[in-house]
Amino acid sequence: MNKEVDLSKYQIRTDLAIDYVEEKKELEGVKHKTEIIDGITVTNVSLSDNNVLKKKKGKYITLEFEDVTDRDNREKIINVLTSILKKMLKLNKDSFGLIVGLGNDKSTPDSLGPLVVNDIIVTNHLYILNELSDNYKRLSAINPGVMGETGIETSDIIDAIVKKIKPSYLIVIDSLASKSIERLNKTIQITDTGIHPGSGIGNKRKEISFETLGIPVIAIGVPTVVDATVIVSDTINFIYKNYAFNKEYMNNPKSKLTFNNVNYLNKQVKENKEDKEQLLGLLGTLNEEELQILLYEVLNPIGYNLMVTPKEIDFIIQKLSNVISISINNSIHVIDKK
Amino acid sequence: MNKEVDLSKYQIRTDLAIDYVEEKKELEGVKHKTEIIDGITVTNVSLSDNNVLKKKKGKYITLEFEDVTDRDNREKIINVLTSILKKMLKLNKDSFGLIVGLGNDKSTPDSLGPLVVNDIIVTNHLYILNELSDNYKRLSAINPGVMGETGIETSDIIDAIVKKIKPSYLIVIDSLASKSIERLNKTIQITDTGIHPGSGIGNKRKEISFETLGIPVIAIGVPTVVDATVIVSDTINFIYKNYAFNKEYMNNPKSKLTFNNVNYLNKQVKENKEDKEQLLGLLGTLNEEELQILLYEVLNPIGYNLMVTPKEIDFIIQKLSNVISISINNSIHVIDKK
Amino acid sequence: MNKEVDLSKYQIRTDLAIDYVEEKKELEGVKHKTEIIDGITVTNVSLSDNNVLKKKKGKYITLEFEDVTDRDNREKIINVLTSILKKMLKLNKDSFGLIVGLGNDKSTPDSLGPLVVNDIIVTNHLYILNELSDNYKRLSAINPGVMGETGIETSDIIDAIVKKIKPSYLIVIDSLASKSIERLNKTIQITDTGIHPGSGIGNKRKEISFETLGIPVIAIGVPTVVDATVIVSDTINFIYKNYAFNKEYMNNPKSKLTFNNVNYLNKQVKENKEDKEQLLGLLGTLNEEELQILLYEVLNPIGYNLMVTPKEIDFIIQKLSNVISISINNSIHVIDKK
Amino acid sequence: MNKEVDLSKYQIRTDLAIDYVEEKKELEGVKHKTEIIDGITVTNVSLSDNNVLKKKKGKYITLEFEDVTDRDNREKIINVLTSILKKMLKLNKDSFGLIVGLGNDKSTPDSLGPLVVNDIIVTNHLYILNELSDNYKRLSAINPGVMGETGIETSDIIDAIVKKIKPSYLIVIDSLASKSIERLNKTIQITDTGIHPGSGIGNKRKEISFETLGIPVIAIGVPTVVDATVIVSDTINFIYKNYAFNKEYMNNPKSKLTFNNVNYLNKQVKENKEDKEQLLGLLGTLNEEELQILLYEVLNPIGYNLMVTPKEIDFIIQKLSNVISISINNSIHVIDKK
Repeated sequence: MNKEVDLSKYQIRTDLAIDYVEEKKELEGVKHKTEIIDGITVTNVSLSDNNVLKKKKGKYITLEFEDVTDRDNREKIINVLTSILKKMLKLNKDSFGLIVGLGNDKSTPDSLGPLVVNDIIVTNHLYILNELSDNYKRLSAINPGVMGETGIETSDIIDAIVKKIKPSYLIVIDSLASKSIERLNKTIQITDTGIHPGSGIGNKRKEISFETLGIPVIAIGVPTVVDATVIVSDTINFIYKNYAFNKEYMNNPKSKLTFNNVNYLNKQVKENKEDKEQLLGLLGTLNEEELQILLYEVLNPIGYNLMVTPKEIDFIIQKLSNVISISINNSIHVIDKK
Repeated sequence: MNKEVDLSKYQIRTDLAIDYVEEKKELEGVKHKTEIIDGITVTNVSLSDNNVLKKKKGKYITLEFEDVTDRDNREKIINVLTSILKKMLKLNKDSFGLIVGLGNDKSTPDSLGPLVVNDIIVTNHLYILNELSDNYKRLSAINPGVMGETGIETSDIIDAIVKKIKPSYLIVIDSLASKSIERLNKTIQITDTGIHPGSGIGNKRKEISFETLGIPVIAIGVPTVVDATVIVSDTINFIYKNYAFNKEYMNNPKSKLTFNNVNYLNKQVKENKEDKEQLLGLLGTLNEEELQILLYEVLNPIGYNLMVTPKEIDFIIQKLSNVISISINNSIHVIDKK
Repeated sequence: MNKEVDLSKYQIRTDLAIDYVEEKKELEGVKHKTEIIDGITVTNVSLSDNNVLKKKKGKYITLEFEDVTDRDNREKIINVLTSILKKMLKLNKDSFGLIVGLGNDKSTPDSLGPLVVNDIIVTNHLYILNELSDNYKRLSAINPGVMGETGIETSDIIDAIVKKIKPSYLIVIDSLASKSIERLNKTIQITDTGIHPGSGIGNKRKEISFETLGIPVIAIGVPTVVDATVIVSDTINFIYKNYAFNKEYMNNPKSKLTFNNVNYLNKQVKENKEDKEQLLGLLGTLNEEELQILLYEVLNPIGYNLMVTPKEIDFIIQKLSNVISISINNSIHVIDKK
Repeated sequence: MNKEVDLSKYQIRTDLAIDYVEEKKELEGVKHKTEIIDGITVTNVSLSDNNVLKKKKGKYITLEFEDVTDRDNREKIINVLTSILKKMLKLNKDSFGLIVGLGNDKSTPDSLGPLVVNDIIVTNHLYILNELSDNYKRLSAINPGVMGETGIETSDIIDAIVKKIKPSYLIVIDSLASKSIERLNKTIQITDTGIHPGSGIGNKRKEISFETLGIPVIAIGVPTVVDATVIVSDTINFIYKNYAFNKEYMNNPKSKLTFNNVNYLNKQVKENKEDKEQLLGLLGTLNEEELQILLYEVLNPIGYNLMVTPKEIDFIIQKLSNVISISINNSIHVIDKK
């Protein structure tokens, strides 16, 4: 296998800073802190200019939760997300926002942005008529569509509208591709770095950020699909973990009864290089990046353009968009929750 | 009844030039010609600068047809509409179009524009990559949404995008309010005058035209709803026509058998002022405009915001959008019809 | 005008018992009582066997409210509706329900039933597997479609399924045609008499009731459309009421300032037969039924099949279906409202 | 790894007979014949009573095609499918059909059946009124929903309706799970054996067949999703095939230029057991069934319920449903194709 390749073209597109941060390690230019608020894991990652992750300087806040289809859970996520957004936005009475939903409303996993925008309480037209009550701030919203349906670079549409209506800040909502199955629909990332090239679900945009637009840009992203290569590489790793787990626990009499259907990923198991190679051959000697490259080279020429989603994706996307639109509305307007 | 009022505020919103043109009369500044092509009535109205209709100078071409849900009929409309668009557009190989769908995709009778745009074959992104085949011209398309959902004046969004991507012409598709039940979903108007204030289904836009954008703007409009006042005023007139028809034909022995369910509107009947007043009282003495004003004054304070549509509106809108999107695609690209 | 006609064929289809009951009059076989609960007007009409209304014996409970798009209002309606349904259903732990959504999910005003059914918490399949928790009762739900799309009489589909799965009670949800604009989307009727011929929005069903199915049938209906004839006849009456109101209040100096945009329908105004005839001619001499017949005869031969709905119908139907599905779920299952 | 397990519970659900038939081998009880009609591969598999595949006796006809989103291709598929259905149905003038769409219209890959039913031309209600023209046959159609939304076994709903309206034949349309990525949305299977347990996308139904209903049942199925285990096992096999292909062609100077992006699956490459084991370790020694079992055991305890679909699934399902509904209409009614 030729490894002398441009790695960037194989890169699994993800914008989750949390994917690059490991629990205990100290990394240059990276500060991170994790706390659990009301059952939701909130991780603050702060990247400075020359961080080793080579990602853009800024704040990345990640919410991790279990099940967005549970009503109680949803209310907790809304509370945490609302307070994070409030802190990041720091609005005053003259703030004028534009909410942008990226993605394609005709493709379920990519429809998160458009669905959120549909439920935003817009007020700019009332503000212009001097009919806006004090509880509401000046707000507008737009679904620019995707390049495949408009023929226009999405960032160009946004840039044009920003220049025309001159909002003081931007919030973009987007579906992301996930680097791991475990985060799928269970993570919301909020960042003040905007959206930049190579990110997200497809090559549908150029950078949308303070640098390009001249106003603060907050990006809210949720990983809603996994590339086919990810599920294969995850599973190949799981094959070994499952094997190692079985080997360690099988001879332990205590575990006999609970052995079946145990989520072995949650267990700490010692890895053994020789076992791995015996089980997986040369495959087992590849690191994660090399495995991704291999899979890309294997699947790409066959011409598949596949995605992996949960079977209940339609229902889950509805609930996620609900959580995000309510949080945005609550963090900007004063809404009577009665 | 006070008639000393500003008539403009009562005006039934319509943009159908044909509504102002009567068959035989000579009007200053107005040329019109009607021909029937393959069963479709095509009326060309040409207005010069100081026309008596006080409408904008330009060409208004109207197609009138019976039933857009009939497949044969649909193919005929597509043929006629395609050839009209081709003539109006006069494209060359460098032409670069932007198709704009006005209206709200969540309200059936107002969703015509967005539905048409969804089926436009856009190519601008391929043109930029130099991947465009000769059969296709450079084309982009956008659904700007409605002000109630974006908080932004629709004409501002269009203006911003036009300035950014610099198309050489614009086509806007819009649902109109009809001044008469008879035209509902049975008329398509194509005009080179664009969309201007006071037109259409709601107050959702400022002028979109050559004058404001600096490029040719062709507007395609279809009357898809009727205001509640229209159906009432139409029906009050029908009451008299029906009465007059009955009076004239009832004593005619020949018509006895066919009397029931005859469409009396197609019959020529002499009107009689005294009969009308006896039947309708003071109502019968009002001209059309006065009746509209009265109805507006009667219905407005009650706070109804009603519209009248055919019961099959969802199905009809699908077919109309199909006809228009195919005609636009055919008039711009070279599409193999096999 | 020939009035010697079969009145039944002209009858505006409505199933709202409340339309037939006037405030103070004593009617044979009719008991009715109105109370206001939390801002919602609840009218109980009880019809005995030979009631003068010639409607089916049974209970008809009507909720009247102002604005279902207001969140507070919605919670009040849910509370009242839930408690009415609980009282009517009188379920025990073995009760097994079938919820049926009548109507066409592709036509907005007729989609209420299907939308409600989509949000019902069904449990019958879990009951069969013995996996049902105590908080939930055995429940199933179905959208049988409309005859125009299935080719099958809807009542036949329901009858077949009832015979097969043997529920102990049925709830049907349906869109109704309203006899008055004022009730449109502002009334919910619950009756234990089921659905019977001549009712509702179209001729799409035969009787669905205890008599035909052998189990209790509760029908929940909401008037969501008005026939074109209704809006015309209502408006003709309003013309006179507006005239009478103006005449009475115009010379009253106190009312000068507030005169414009006053909802004259809420004011008590003396009617004057001569005035009415002068204003409306022979039209003014017709009673409501005669006017309906006239309008039917005028509009029918022209072949219009029009309906009148509010412009925001899509949004309103969403909210109404939400209110009804939550109320049904709450009245059957024990749902934690946290 | 314990292989002493009940294989049935691991079985990838597929109903494509073609998956079990290899090109040249003679199998007991199995006759098959492949021909290419207008670019579409049509395979007839005929199974007799004690066939080695242990599948139900009957005819299985499979259409394989490349791209259903291509208009020309679509017309070819419609022609072939129409003629196959005509032969299978053998209708006479008294035939009375019921078309059943299995699946969930709210989950894109499972919505094929409901979408097809929406476009069927039903006539039974006209037949009953004696209003049916000679060009049309008696036809009805229904979407019974899925058990998770109705609480009712789908086969029970169908059985009840068949007993009530007594059609003379049934056509069911269903989404299938595929055993291979290559067939995804590129295969239509028509069989006279109906739908039977263990088939298809989920456990949502009991048998629907001549044996259970007493009338001929034709099932039309399309594989629209692939289970996550399939993509992993396919890819693991591809890894080796890609490796073998590279090894064989890399030293061949002729292929140097075309080496990249060659679809190696179409090339005949010698397999080498030792190479495979070196590359894949123990994984490389498993046969297809053993690999599936392993993957099931690895992925199941983690609790993922994932599916794999093409990114353009919404668009593809529209086109597939279009092809099938037109073919059904054409094979039953005489439809003027003008």
